[in-house]
Amino acid sequence: MKVPPKRNVATTLKLRRVAIDTYRENVAYLHRDCPIYRAEGFQALSKVEVSANGRRIVAVLNVVDDHNIVNPEGLGLSEQAFAQLRCNANDLVTIYHAEPPRSMDSVRRKIGGERLSPTEFQAITQDIVGNRYSKMEMAAFLVAAGQTGLDRDEVLYLTRAMTETGRRLDWHEPLVADKHCIGGIPGNRTSMLVVPIVAAHGMLIPKTSSRAITSPAGTADTMEILADVNLQPDAMHRVVRQQRGCLAWGGTANLAPVDDVLISVERPLGIDSQSQMVASILAKKLAAGSTHLLIDIPVGPTAKVRHMRAALQLRKLFEFVGDRLGLHLEVVITDGRQPVGRGIGPVLEARDVMQVLENHPEAPADLRQKALRLAGRVLEFDPDVRGGQGFAIARDILDSGRALAKMNALIDAQGRQHNQYPPGQLNYDIRADRDGVVTGVDNFLLARVARMAGAPMDKGAGVELLKKLADPVGKDEPLYRVHAEFPADFEFAARLNAERGSGYSIGDSEHVPQPYVEL
Amino acid sequence: MKVPPKRNVATTLKLRRVAIDTYRENVAYLHRDCPIYRAEGFQALSKVEVSANGRRIVAVLNVVDDHNIVNPEGLGLSEQAFAQLRCNANDLVTIYHAEPPRSMDSVRRKIGGERLSPTEFQAITQDIVGNRYSKMEMAAFLVAAGQTGLDRDEVLYLTRAMTETGRRLDWHEPLVADKHCIGGIPGNRTSMLVVPIVAAHGMLIPKTSSRAITSPAGTADTMEILADVNLQPDAMHRVVRQQRGCLAWGGTANLAPVDDVLISVERPLGIDSQSQMVASILAKKLAAGSTHLLIDIPVGPTAKVRHMRAALQLRKLFEFVGDRLGLHLEVVITDGRQPVGRGIGPVLEARDVMQVLENHPEAPADLRQKALRLAGRVLEFDPDVRGGQGFAIARDILDSGRALAKMNALIDAQGRQHNQYPPGQLNYDIRADRDGVVTGVDNFLLARVARMAGAPMDKGAGVELLKKLADPVGKDEPLYRVHAEFPADFEFAARLNAERGSGYSIGDSEHVPQPYVEL
Repeated sequence: MKVPPKRNVATTLKLRRVAIDTYRENVAYLHRDCPIYRAEGFQALSKVEVSANGRRIVAVLNVVDDHNIVNPEGLGLSEQAFAQLRCNANDLVTIYHAEPPRSMDSVRRKIGGERLSPTEFQAITQDIVGNRYSKMEMAAFLVAAGQTGLDRDEVLYLTRAMTETGRRLDWHEPLVADKHCIGGIPGNRTSMLVVPIVAAHGMLIPKTSSRAITSPAGTADTMEILADVNLQPDAMHRVVRQQRGCLAWGGTANLAPVDDVLISVERPLGIDSQSQMVASILAKKLAAGSTHLLIDIPVGPTAKVRHMRAALQLRKLFEFVGDRLGLHLEVVITDGRQPVGRGIGPVLEARDVMQVLENHPEAPADLRQKALRLAGRVLEFDPDVRGGQGFAIARDILDSGRALAKMNALIDAQGRQHNQYPPGQLNYDIRADRDGVVTGVDNFLLARVARMAGAPMDKGAGVELLKKLADPVGKDEPLYRVHAEFPADFEFAARLNAERGSGYSIGDSEHVPQPYVEL
Repeated sequence: MKVPPKRNVATTLKLRRVAIDTYRENVAYLHRDCPIYRAEGFQALSKVEVSANGRRIVAVLNVVDDHNIVNPEGLGLSEQAFAQLRCNANDLVTIYHAEPPRSMDSVRRKIGGERLSPTEFQAITQDIVGNRYSKMEMAAFLVAAGQTGLDRDEVLYLTRAMTETGRRLDWHEPLVADKHCIGGIPGNRTSMLVVPIVAAHGMLIPKTSSRAITSPAGTADTMEILADVNLQPDAMHRVVRQQRGCLAWGGTANLAPVDDVLISVERPLGIDSQSQMVASILAKKLAAGSTHLLIDIPVGPTAKVRHMRAALQLRKLFEFVGDRLGLHLEVVITDGRQPVGRGIGPVLEARDVMQVLENHPEAPADLRQKALRLAGRVLEFDPDVRGGQGFAIARDILDSGRALAKMNALIDAQGRQHNQYPPGQLNYDIRADRDGVVTGVDNFLLARVARMAGAPMDKGAGVELLKKLADPVGKDEPLYRVHAEFPADFEFAARLNAERGSGYSIGDSEHVPQPYVEL
């Protein structure tokens, strides 16, 4: 075999920053006249590996014909890719064909219906968090895993593997409580009540929450109306030490970061498998250092879980995985027939929460009741609280004003938000088209109306429910009010209502659906 | 309900062409300061619909911070997106949030393991060919369809739906023959022999072929060494009328174009389901106007189909779908234990083909033999040819020089290629590491070596086999020669050989694997 001659093309290029924001997808820009482009047979959309100073990233290649974007001697990187490489403009970089990530072999095995091992799940999650998967490849993994369904051992492996993609908080205490709802019910802001109640009792509850992904408000979006939620890890620890709790956004803590990447694919695809949900929730909680966890599964005709049977299956899966992770995990199945509270959207939901804390006469009773039940169950994690006594303790903490005082202390510790956000000033009412009682409220449609109206980006946007299940209504009486801040959003929401109706069913009182659970 | 006020933001933008080649993915560029960007709550990577003059396209949004790329009053489109919209720079365009394609509901049903109807397959393929699916969504469809497997009726529905995405050729003759190999065997250039033999017999065989996707050469790449293959539909019809056949690239004919889009996702994912393969092949053939079709399924340890059982399953599926499409379809299962012929790569394969046509004493016997068998079976589609006589007729046409004459006539009709392409001048030999006989040749590795060496882009690059199965070899005797045109490619191929070995097994003569089939 002859010794290969030296390459006759330059293998290094000068790094350029291209001011294009491609979010979670790294893009590299190469000029069509770049000698390496020709010599190496790159193609637009092929994956390349860019390396410099011992760091390397994988990016999708776009081919450029404009010297203003990148010249033939340069290699451009989109904003996030540039930041990831941690180099400076004009540094010399090398570019290669990226080999497909090795763990794609496991994904193909999963597509073939095979069972994957713990190390295979580790390899997949590490490759994903290392930016070595394209969105297409992630979609293949998610669909394959969602479709055959992972068996429960595989969900456990995936959960552990996801946890290992980031850091893990350690609170150095034997009891670190948390609660989590699987989502799907608008207005369900119980965490903002459970945390102050539980922390007022003295139990450690360092709650990190997400922002809304497909919903009109996440706990972080709503808490942000009242306080700073973007706490750096140090600040969060300080608040928790001082107050026994916090209500912070989880994004800065780097907890199971692979989950955020996977969600960025699941969301636009609208796929949502049970095994992925369980792994995602438990990986985050494990990384957050929780030892005791209460899971809320709402059931209802327009909830994520529509039948009691499915709720029980999901509960078993949570229990199986949670137990093996060493979590003390309890699952409660709750009433998901309609939104909780009155408001949907950050400002409107924050108002509900504060009314409950203030024992305001107009505070929504269902939100109060649900929060007390959940807080009671969390309090019972305390070995000194007798089984069945949690609810009464929670109610006492709330009624006495100690929960409100704790919330104010939390707000001050995190940094009080001094801007006043009013509900959106553009609004219209949706009215009943007949006399009767409310026999159905579509969670999904109301969430979409609130999003179209601008929530959660426009904080005051959303929906204010004026009637709830079983309430009597007269023809033309308002059912709910839509709030928007911008005319374009106003129009979007109105168009959706025009096309899809109100989301309310009005009928006879005997048609009001019974809750699947009594809570 | 109040009447929505007028929007307070401009809804039109000036179209800009951004000189970035994003291949099959449309990208729209919006400046971060663009008022619409803020008002409508777009996010980077979200899907937008851009419309102008009654046309609309779907694109992925990238957010730009550089006025040189696009200014806040403009909307930039990548090359292909700009071309698809068929507008001019500075035309006014509107941009909306793109709704996810409706047929994604069917994809989610398929993920859930349900069976889809003909109209659902139609909606999916129309949305894909209409550029309304992201790569991620296509991956979800392909994995879902590949994993549960479509049942055979669904494969039929998908095939019909794929055919309907493009035009359909009509040759106005009762017998339009074609042959197709499912691929995976390097050097298997039988079409370039079957077409001249069959056309010389007078049977109509208008063959359209693909270029290499993952292989080192497709029939179109190899034929291009000899003649123009980029025939516009008119030119192709003229050649076929004159010569009773052609060997053209199928890309300009717009046959089942959705297939090309799906392949652009399957290829990087490395997924390859039987149902997708059958639908893809039969849709293209149906669109090409074939009435009689011979399918070649090679079987061998490193072929696409590795066991006789799997080959029979695949045959049944081809037969089921083909019969219901009204095709006269025959399947032959052939020996796929090793590459066919001597050369791998366009120039080297074209040389093999011409040697067989010229009855050259060094012509590779296996290529000749296989081509005669296949041509014989195609000739037997002729009602006047007695069953079993096809082979002798084909051999007579080849030995008499009539096949060569027909090939020359085809080359002249398509446009003779006057450039002479020599095999790549940089080369090295891979040698045996012991005495013995060749007991195995890895199709897959040899194809990769040829690709790394530059095939099919560098026409002279590839591999020249010097030994084949059962050949005796001495230690250090050359097994094959690798040809490259560029030093970088040379080095890639050599590195692959250094890492993965030769791809040849040398052993005792009793370990030569038996062919699964005698052909």
